[in-house]
Amino acid sequence: MTKLTHEAKGTYAIAPTPFLEDGRIDERSIDRLTDFYAEIGCNGVTVLGIMGEAPKLDGNEAEEVAKRFIKRAKNMQIIVGVSAPGFAAMRSLARASMDAGAAGVMIAPPPTLRTDDQIVGYFKQAVDAIGSDIPWVLQDYPLTLNVIFTPAVIRKIVTDNPSCVMLKHEDWPGLEKISALRGFQKDGSLRPLSILTGNGALFLDFEMERGADGAMTGYAFPEMLIDVVQLMKEARRDAAHDLFDAHLPLIRYEQQPSIGLAVRKYVLQKRGIIVSSAQRKPGSTISATAKAEVDYLLSRVARVDRRADMRPQSSAAG
Amino acid sequence: MTKLTHEAKGTYAIAPTPFLEDGRIDERSIDRLTDFYAEIGCNGVTVLGIMGEAPKLDGNEAEEVAKRFIKRAKNMQIIVGVSAPGFAAMRSLARASMDAGAAGVMIAPPPTLRTDDQIVGYFKQAVDAIGSDIPWVLQDYPLTLNVIFTPAVIRKIVTDNPSCVMLKHEDWPGLEKISALRGFQKDGSLRPLSILTGNGALFLDFEMERGADGAMTGYAFPEMLIDVVQLMKEARRDAAHDLFDAHLPLIRYEQQPSIGLAVRKYVLQKRGIIVSSAQRKPGSTISATAKAEVDYLLSRVARVDRRADMRPQSSAAG
Amino acid sequence: MTKLTHEAKGTYAIAPTPFLEDGRIDERSIDRLTDFYAEIGCNGVTVLGIMGEAPKLDGNEAEEVAKRFIKRAKNMQIIVGVSAPGFAAMRSLARASMDAGAAGVMIAPPPTLRTDDQIVGYFKQAVDAIGSDIPWVLQDYPLTLNVIFTPAVIRKIVTDNPSCVMLKHEDWPGLEKISALRGFQKDGSLRPLSILTGNGALFLDFEMERGADGAMTGYAFPEMLIDVVQLMKEARRDAAHDLFDAHLPLIRYEQQPSIGLAVRKYVLQKRGIIVSSAQRKPGSTISATAKAEVDYLLSRVARVDRRADMRPQSSAAG
Amino acid sequence: MTKLTHEAKGTYAIAPTPFLEDGRIDERSIDRLTDFYAEIGCNGVTVLGIMGEAPKLDGNEAEEVAKRFIKRAKNMQIIVGVSAPGFAAMRSLARASMDAGAAGVMIAPPPTLRTDDQIVGYFKQAVDAIGSDIPWVLQDYPLTLNVIFTPAVIRKIVTDNPSCVMLKHEDWPGLEKISALRGFQKDGSLRPLSILTGNGALFLDFEMERGADGAMTGYAFPEMLIDVVQLMKEARRDAAHDLFDAHLPLIRYEQQPSIGLAVRKYVLQKRGIIVSSAQRKPGSTISATAKAEVDYLLSRVARVDRRADMRPQSSAAG
Repeated sequence: MTKLTHEAKGTYAIAPTPFLEDGRIDERSIDRLTDFYAEIGCNGVTVLGIMGEAPKLDGNEAEEVAKRFIKRAKNMQIIVGVSAPGFAAMRSLARASMDAGAAGVMIAPPPTLRTDDQIVGYFKQAVDAIGSDIPWVLQDYPLTLNVIFTPAVIRKIVTDNPSCVMLKHEDWPGLEKISALRGFQKDGSLRPLSILTGNGALFLDFEMERGADGAMTGYAFPEMLIDVVQLMKEARRDAAHDLFDAHLPLIRYEQQPSIGLAVRKYVLQKRGIIVSSAQRKPGSTISATAKAEVDYLLSRVARVDRRADMRPQSSAAG
Repeated sequence: MTKLTHEAKGTYAIAPTPFLEDGRIDERSIDRLTDFYAEIGCNGVTVLGIMGEAPKLDGNEAEEVAKRFIKRAKNMQIIVGVSAPGFAAMRSLARASMDAGAAGVMIAPPPTLRTDDQIVGYFKQAVDAIGSDIPWVLQDYPLTLNVIFTPAVIRKIVTDNPSCVMLKHEDWPGLEKISALRGFQKDGSLRPLSILTGNGALFLDFEMERGADGAMTGYAFPEMLIDVVQLMKEARRDAAHDLFDAHLPLIRYEQQPSIGLAVRKYVLQKRGIIVSSAQRKPGSTISATAKAEVDYLLSRVARVDRRADMRPQSSAAG
Repeated sequence: MTKLTHEAKGTYAIAPTPFLEDGRIDERSIDRLTDFYAEIGCNGVTVLGIMGEAPKLDGNEAEEVAKRFIKRAKNMQIIVGVSAPGFAAMRSLARASMDAGAAGVMIAPPPTLRTDDQIVGYFKQAVDAIGSDIPWVLQDYPLTLNVIFTPAVIRKIVTDNPSCVMLKHEDWPGLEKISALRGFQKDGSLRPLSILTGNGALFLDFEMERGADGAMTGYAFPEMLIDVVQLMKEARRDAAHDLFDAHLPLIRYEQQPSIGLAVRKYVLQKRGIIVSSAQRKPGSTISATAKAEVDYLLSRVARVDRRADMRPQSSAAG
Repeated sequence: MTKLTHEAKGTYAIAPTPFLEDGRIDERSIDRLTDFYAEIGCNGVTVLGIMGEAPKLDGNEAEEVAKRFIKRAKNMQIIVGVSAPGFAAMRSLARASMDAGAAGVMIAPPPTLRTDDQIVGYFKQAVDAIGSDIPWVLQDYPLTLNVIFTPAVIRKIVTDNPSCVMLKHEDWPGLEKISALRGFQKDGSLRPLSILTGNGALFLDFEMERGADGAMTGYAFPEMLIDVVQLMKEARRDAAHDLFDAHLPLIRYEQQPSIGLAVRKYVLQKRGIIVSSAQRKPGSTISATAKAEVDYLLSRVARVDRRADMRPQSSAAG
């Protein structure tokens, strides 16, 4: 597997960690999920992120999960989320993942960081801890992580740490931030940097227009992410928005705080990609009413995008 | 003007406070805005809410703005946001508004409230302060207000305070909360209560299906809110979703924290309803790129909903 | 009254706002309190701060309270807290206070500020709003205000705004911050600035040693503040600590979040300086047990500092 | 080692985790520290708490540290902090510690809990995870943990979970909370519960008077904690306060957020109990000026309490 560089682009799926009903890790579903991402054409997969329920795994489990994804991946880069309350755990997962063949790691800030100096200082220490030879992704997700990065702070982190090659952009609002960073690059004050966008893809349409290199998020139909990124690359603006808009009602439904993962696992299970939608505790579940709402949204997406058709094969074919 | 009761339903627009470029209150635009809401068929208008930049007005200005809306309103109920850091200001605006003919007031919690008891206690004190004869709306908007109400706490507030007649529901996620409250009513543990939903209408479609009585939010095309509420009332589910989905890309764009008001004032100005999109400091503005993005979204909405057609009259007619 | 300058030093008391039992402003107690501060030798008094329950007054009341203190003050500078959710109210109170003879105003940041740029930008807008001719005090109190200033941000605010003449320092921990700011002045990167310290005087002993110019806080025995500041100025270190340490058990008791004001008003009432310890709602009260604890602490302070002797005059004389 | 019960009382020291300068765990200092606590008469020691830098250890290290303390302890109960972002790690450390002979475990809430129901629900899940046979301590420390427990919520947790035998009380302000809980026990609504108090001992004097059973905190002179607890038990109120007040200037200095641990490790190193004051990153350090301030405070404590005399042995003996 090649190492992650600032030239990364396209679609990197954020993978959930599949569990069995009793809370054990479901290794077969990891394989199936990895194959699925490869088959539809993802450029990479990010594992053990927020959506991967990473804090619920102990150190050994985290390493096993990362290795299983890495071993199974074909022609895709695996990025491993290594965020941890302490640098000992961060380092050991990062090094083990890279040794196993990961393309890079992703680091989110702890929620205690407030001032610009605290933020910049933290990432310097994190790089000291994991080693400056590991390419890494900076995660900027204030809604969940509660840390606010200005464009100038991102520039400083990228400049201070040559091994930072990518920004997982998911600020909200965030469009002007992409423009500001691309502006820094035009004026020569920021070196090349890959920007992939998350936040459930809620603004993927305009993020691409503002200069993002692609998507890195966990929407349960990553096929759409791939197509929108591709259509935008081909400058087929209206077609990209048409496809995006058809999915937006479901994207929005998935991007609800705290229950979003339950929605995604429900859809992935319905699609036959993972065996169970179970989460480890403390986890979220969705009601029967919510499931019916998701089903209705899927049926509406399917009017435009046949891949969302969840009806039994025979009738779908009819 | 009739007083607000638990039977309120339909669409209540959240009004911005129009300013002139130099920061003075734009009274003519208040009139025009009020007329606009009346003409399209709003059941009411809520003024001096978060979107109304209420904290930027001093006490006298707030009273003047409220009175101007009230005086101009025809066949619509005016609800006045009276949230304030202290009860002296809250009481004086509430009583002046009611004397001038308001239908009721709206109260949001201060961000310091944490425990269930603190929340319940605060609203008891607020009702003591304004007087128990004034019908009021409880605002539940955690994303912005940072106070978390469980369904049981809402039930307790409603039960403790007979003058609480409406919930402005804008929790996120919030669909299960509506179901829980309607469930309390079915099991007899909660008296009748009007539930109108906010959060920029991002979930209006399913909120109506879950039992909401209508919408109370500031989307710049309140005509859509009125129609979706009406279609849902008529049980025309697919038609309601079709209309809603056509607007969703713009709804989502408007509902970005901190810049949402700038987007709304831009659209209202573009529609010729207010003279200026100016906000008082500290305020937000949107870039030329953002304006072009909004224009593009409007043109896309217009393909389905002609009312969003912003092109010069002659060409629109062509 | 002279205007506040960067040469201010000594002790500025933070005054509570005295209320009658029914919540009305107690003007006679304002006069008595002002006289008390003058008699013991305060250099100034800060009114309408956090401890002054400022947000519970409406605009007209705030102006009246400020004017009453200003009119009564003799040989003392009055600083008026003008922090407000909006600049309209901030400006009108600031200008009215200065017109009435205030020495300067104090501004605290709103809790929403997070990044360095947001903080710096806010104070620029505030100075624009009140006018650059009004000398002002920057309040740095993260525990209560939830905004974190680095030394470099304070330097930037002071440099950007020539009318900022004083820092009310009450960060916790905060000793290194004073050293850092005094270091900036030594290396020529920061102009002269008065630093008075608050945080209930919990660290006044070492703050003076680190370079503070005096105290600005609401401890109910401001006589101690004056003496410690004076002793430190005379380099009588041990004597200063001896006096400070005798008061520390009570200082600590007063500096409890949310109930501190109730303790202070209880002591000031007991000393006969204000008529009632009443607070406006939402306010705090202390139990009979807590009052007995305060009484016990007072009796212990009195063993070292006779001024804390609260026993009836005759027995005290015995 | 006996299991922890609701009858626990006296002084339980909160132990730091000693590291060598290079960040490795210093096992010899663990032994020495344990011996020190036993020699002075502590009833127990709590390890891997906030002060123990627990999140900076990986799972295996945490287990080793806990076992080392347990193995070395003589006549003292060891309580192991098992708070973790996920239940997998919490369970594995809890069970390993109990198997090794720990007396019980301590659990702190994650910072995301807000409503009463969320708090109650979390501890139910935690007990499910570790097993209901392990006696545990509920940590209530809002200043650091950002979760607010009302007395009623604590009662509910204790009632729901028979294995909860102790409250580590460190709310601020917190005296009324102790009175409320003891009141619940008097009225029969709460079963027996040990209450030990923390918060750096800042209010130990009055906490004992309100009904606490003892102290559980990390003050670097636990001898004082033991003596104050004992004096209060003997109802020697003035003597208890005299001793407490002599230490209060240092207690206060230690209880500064974020740098408190650096002060404590500095004092423990100075006392010859641990080899190095090093913390793992991200950690805090104190300046030479701060060290001199601590030295000065120690010399002042030593005037009253000889045990704080840090002068070289010969001169101290002189």
